[in-house]
Amino acid sequence: MLARDIAQEFPAVDVDTEALTAARLLASHDLPGLVVLDSNGTPTAVLPAADVLRVVIPDYIQDDPSLARVVNEIAADQIMHELRDRTVRDLLPESPGGLPVIDGDDTLLEGAALMAQLRSPLVAVVDNHRFAGVVTAAHLLKLALGDA
Amino acid sequence: MLARDIAQEFPAVDVDTEALTAARLLASHDLPGLVVLDSNGTPTAVLPAADVLRVVIPDYIQDDPSLARVVNEIAADQIMHELRDRTVRDLLPESPGGLPVIDGDDTLLEGAALMAQLRSPLVAVVDNHRFAGVVTAAHLLKLALGDA
Repeated sequence: MLARDIAQEFPAVDVDTEALTAARLLASHDLPGLVVLDSNGTPTAVLPAADVLRVVIPDYIQDDPSLARVVNEIAADQIMHELRDRTVRDLLPESPGGLPVIDGDDTLLEGAALMAQLRSPLVAVVDNHRFAGVVTAAHLLKLALGDA
Repeated sequence: MLARDIAQEFPAVDVDTEALTAARLLASHDLPGLVVLDSNGTPTAVLPAADVLRVVIPDYIQDDPSLARVVNEIAADQIMHELRDRTVRDLLPESPGGLPVIDGDDTLLEGAALMAQLRSPLVAVVDNHRFAGVVTAAHLLKLALGDA
């Protein structure tokens, strides 16, 4: 069985996608992160949901989360304000970790080995130079245990 | 709004849970990881799905994933064999990163700040010394954007 045979659809954005769109996508799919594509449609990074939070939380609270106790909750309109006029490019960390990528005709064992090596919960699958979805560690375990 | 008000149920195992049970739980819920509780029921670590894969993939393939190309897929019975007689304790990395934990009466802003600081997709909520579920970054974004 090859990676392309089991790649699952997964929300992707590109570096020019509006930050608010990315935040809504994370929220509506309850995802820990989004795949980010470069301008050629090739997966290039993961945007972790935590990094979106980072942008909307004042620095002094990030430095000392206990200060949050004395601050009122951040209002939705303040968050919208922080995200407006920004793109996914602005949300990515300065040195994003990169994204484990395998080819559509790689074997599942290659994907599993890469995830184990990088301690990544998923790998992106590229087929004919296009993003074709992801394979998750959980899905591989399911296949391996014969529960799929 | 306090952490206990929005904590979501999340699968947890303890350090003595059988490895095969943990693998099946990850597979059936399609999760990137499980919360691990210590013998007092307090969240102590996350077991990433990738670390379960690590145990079932031969070392020489982890060292050089391209070798997977010349190896047949690992059979389910081999994986079961590797997992049998092991517990979650055996699957945890030697120095697990620890788990961001907040108290049930912490504010959501405190949870958000902690996730942003630690770049974690979730925090565990402990209420009255017991694991009460998790708050995810995606869920916080959903609440903040007014979509919940």
